[in-house]
Amino acid sequence: MNKLQVIPLGGLGEFGMNMMALRYGDDILVIDSGMMFPEDELLGVDLVMPDLTYLRENVSCVRALLLTHGHEDHIGGVPLFLSELDVPVYGTAFTLALVERRLEEYPDIEEPKLHPIQPRQILEIGPFKVEFMHVTHSMVACVAMAITTPVGVVIHTGDFKVDPTPTDNELFDLHTLADYGKRGVLLLMSDSTNSDRPGYTESERAVRPRFEDIFNRAEKRLVFSCFSSSIHRIQQILDLSQEFRRKVAILGRSMNSVTEIAHNLGLLEIPDNILIRPQDIMDTPPNRVTLLISGTQGEPMSALSRVAVDNHKHISIEPGDTVALSSRIIPGNEKAIFRMIDHMARRGADVLYGSMNPPIHVSGHASAEELRLVLNLVRPRFFVPIHGEYRQMAKHIRLAEHLRSSGLEASFLLESGDVLELDASGARKAGRVTVGRVCIDSGSVDEVVEEMVIRDRRHLSEDGIVLPIIAINRHTGRTETLPEIVSRGFASAEDGSEFLQNARQVVAKTLETSTQEEKTDWGVMKEKIRADLKRYIVKETARRPLIMPVILEV
Amino acid sequence: MNKLQVIPLGGLGEFGMNMMALRYGDDILVIDSGMMFPEDELLGVDLVMPDLTYLRENVSCVRALLLTHGHEDHIGGVPLFLSELDVPVYGTAFTLALVERRLEEYPDIEEPKLHPIQPRQILEIGPFKVEFMHVTHSMVACVAMAITTPVGVVIHTGDFKVDPTPTDNELFDLHTLADYGKRGVLLLMSDSTNSDRPGYTESERAVRPRFEDIFNRAEKRLVFSCFSSSIHRIQQILDLSQEFRRKVAILGRSMNSVTEIAHNLGLLEIPDNILIRPQDIMDTPPNRVTLLISGTQGEPMSALSRVAVDNHKHISIEPGDTVALSSRIIPGNEKAIFRMIDHMARRGADVLYGSMNPPIHVSGHASAEELRLVLNLVRPRFFVPIHGEYRQMAKHIRLAEHLRSSGLEASFLLESGDVLELDASGARKAGRVTVGRVCIDSGSVDEVVEEMVIRDRRHLSEDGIVLPIIAINRHTGRTETLPEIVSRGFASAEDGSEFLQNARQVVAKTLETSTQEEKTDWGVMKEKIRADLKRYIVKETARRPLIMPVILEV
Repeated sequence: MNKLQVIPLGGLGEFGMNMMALRYGDDILVIDSGMMFPEDELLGVDLVMPDLTYLRENVSCVRALLLTHGHEDHIGGVPLFLSELDVPVYGTAFTLALVERRLEEYPDIEEPKLHPIQPRQILEIGPFKVEFMHVTHSMVACVAMAITTPVGVVIHTGDFKVDPTPTDNELFDLHTLADYGKRGVLLLMSDSTNSDRPGYTESERAVRPRFEDIFNRAEKRLVFSCFSSSIHRIQQILDLSQEFRRKVAILGRSMNSVTEIAHNLGLLEIPDNILIRPQDIMDTPPNRVTLLISGTQGEPMSALSRVAVDNHKHISIEPGDTVALSSRIIPGNEKAIFRMIDHMARRGADVLYGSMNPPIHVSGHASAEELRLVLNLVRPRFFVPIHGEYRQMAKHIRLAEHLRSSGLEASFLLESGDVLELDASGARKAGRVTVGRVCIDSGSVDEVVEEMVIRDRRHLSEDGIVLPIIAINRHTGRTETLPEIVSRGFASAEDGSEFLQNARQVVAKTLETSTQEEKTDWGVMKEKIRADLKRYIVKETARRPLIMPVILEV
Repeated sequence: MNKLQVIPLGGLGEFGMNMMALRYGDDILVIDSGMMFPEDELLGVDLVMPDLTYLRENVSCVRALLLTHGHEDHIGGVPLFLSELDVPVYGTAFTLALVERRLEEYPDIEEPKLHPIQPRQILEIGPFKVEFMHVTHSMVACVAMAITTPVGVVIHTGDFKVDPTPTDNELFDLHTLADYGKRGVLLLMSDSTNSDRPGYTESERAVRPRFEDIFNRAEKRLVFSCFSSSIHRIQQILDLSQEFRRKVAILGRSMNSVTEIAHNLGLLEIPDNILIRPQDIMDTPPNRVTLLISGTQGEPMSALSRVAVDNHKHISIEPGDTVALSSRIIPGNEKAIFRMIDHMARRGADVLYGSMNPPIHVSGHASAEELRLVLNLVRPRFFVPIHGEYRQMAKHIRLAEHLRSSGLEASFLLESGDVLELDASGARKAGRVTVGRVCIDSGSVDEVVEEMVIRDRRHLSEDGIVLPIIAINRHTGRTETLPEIVSRGFASAEDGSEFLQNARQVVAKTLETSTQEEKTDWGVMKEKIRADLKRYIVKETARRPLIMPVILEV
């Protein structure tokens, strides 16, 4: 059985939850274990991860989990993975620190075997030899992998762009990549996320002139929000705050813990005495303070969303304050984000966001010309685009067409579950394995998760579904009637039961105790209703039905 | 009572459904009567329009409805408006032709008083004198209005950009605008949609080089999709098809009727003998045909969506075909649009869309520098940003700040319902009037509407709500169980009733008769389930409950 199998278990033909298996005989390596945020349709679900059935069925063959970098779509599924597959995990120290942070919520996983690796380090695992290569991305400490197998070398890029001026001055290791290309590569698997963008993606430093401009103009408080993992971005905000003599307060749980991790690992330089405590913000002159805060996507319970509706303990937006969202708008989040921006504009803040050029955000993924550069350096015999939806992988294959005259034999457009088989005689699709999604329901994403409840939706029939239906008058914010509760497959909620009457009161109370402003923000309201009703139902019945608040406008 | 009241009834602080009233004593002029597409949360509703309560209560004062241009967010509400308020309607011939097209669906409105106007024409209506001025936009035949009132001149821009090279060579009438500015303007109301974009918006002709490039490269069929009202865009596609010796087939109801209207009015030049019938597409050599097709937003029943899942009578996408979406992605539609693109990529088409530069789409709304140009020409005493969400109107007010030294006394950020009062002594906010939204439920947007059902959601309690709940396995596309139906306030749907059992069978049958591909596209499935179930319920009960399909992934 001298065949190598490439088995994408997630992230090909769908955005997020990246996971790839390489199998040779009885040895399986897994690259990344990511999650994705659910689509709108999956009301009531917080996270989605790949189905692990294939790995579970081959548990004795799984040798290791290799991580490319610490973004949620690459490590968010590690806890669930480790609760089923007790194998060693390899990644950079920063990536593993982010994994450890997630693992804190899973006390059942007692002794995870986390092994930090360095770029250029080589691991031997069964028949595989894995070399890690540093790549640049919107995050620090990211790696690609060159995996030497008995049938040839496989290169997996992870997520990357070719940033000529990363803020940490750690350049993309093009030399090692070129070396492999020179010696001959069987298969390249490369990040397709931005294959539909022409040209080059801007460097992480491209935001600096615009940031300087913002610091120059700001006369009052400066509020910066970005992904907590955007260490490049945070470094520049800290540097400029130092330069402009502003103190920095960090708000939001993820922003605090990730900056601390990066600082401890020497990946983030925090100037001496620059940090102040959140409770000191309002006592510091407005023109002497910068806030770093999480919540760019308008997540209902994030620090920034709470600031926007003036529901944060330590800060109130005041007229003249500047708020900059240094992040992209993830499709599907527009309405939540724009509502949040409108709330802040209403309080008199000047809010800077995506569409304003020059950019206050740049992408972390390679555009067409960078993808071509990597293709040309590697010159693979076979090519498989990874990380992207169908249209992006299809574009990426078009970008590789010119290599036909330089040794490229074939490109394969695989979707999650497709198996590609490679051996001495070539490569071919060879069947499918079980893939799918597992839905996970937690308290909420960005706040302290009181308990992590993992429920496969297949068991929906066991716990049933509860739909609280609320009629809200959007303009007055008033509810027109007592909330209705509809359910199926949830026995306690029989019509007219005391339980159901009380549940309606629980929802009514949530509505009463919400501010006028919260009521106009349906994202916040649904989350509050869901959290309160869930607490009540778990207490009363010890069951966990899916709760889907429906808000009707009247 | 020598006061002018400016009363926005829709479109300020919300995107779409623009409507503005001007009142002096007992005379009211209304500018535009638009609709908006509902937000995701309004499941089961097709259109949303402003509440007409204020006009209804002052019906004897309403003198006329003035239309700036024919986009749906400015004329979509005209039928409902006319069914309650029988007043004369003024607009350009093209705008009125689009209104007539909408009115065909409302046979109750027997003799609408539609009066075509020309730019530079002046109307006297009660105490008002209205002059129309040609403006450029993504559509042809658009006007701004200068309304001379007893307290001063009010200018309403409608939607505009300052296009230096419109395809019809009709330039923005900056001269008349400047003239008014010279003589003194009391109040300017100006389009804020793109106030958060720096610089200038590109001309409609900016897409031409990219279109040429597409024609040059295409070796097989060329499929162009744009809004049916984008006459500038359609003209360029026709011209290039002529130049490249391709015949043109027009697909989709709205695309056919709007091009016909524009052609009849001399606004669209259709080269002789260029059109072919849809049934002749597949018999014409692929490199000799261009398709013009509606459905850029992935609307489930549009021509393009049907083509994407290979469910169109006259065309099948084949490998090597090129599909170009010359339109923006309206926020909220991303998922439907990208699913449609993925379907076409799967059939081997090269799909060109939004993010690919140079642009195949340009905006129709003025960016910051154009807005400043209009502000500087008009030099108003008071300024009210219109057409935009809060953040965009707030930005627009910032753009006007420099005029403080040139006579601007105050800017007012009004939201729908706020009343602004102007008289000799100045301007001030003066209370609110009733505003709100009315939800309209129709069969579907782009297809023949079998019956137009207008139901105010306030009457939800009369007709109730029905939620068909379907569990679909996304990967296999199989439904796991017989569909469930949950309802409230809809008496016929008692648990265990025969009616309910039959309704479940109706939904089950919809699922059975759908193709595998349709089943993976929830937008299509929800629309089909809703349409079929609605037909059944209306037939059986003559009632029209709100139907909200819920699809669960298992």
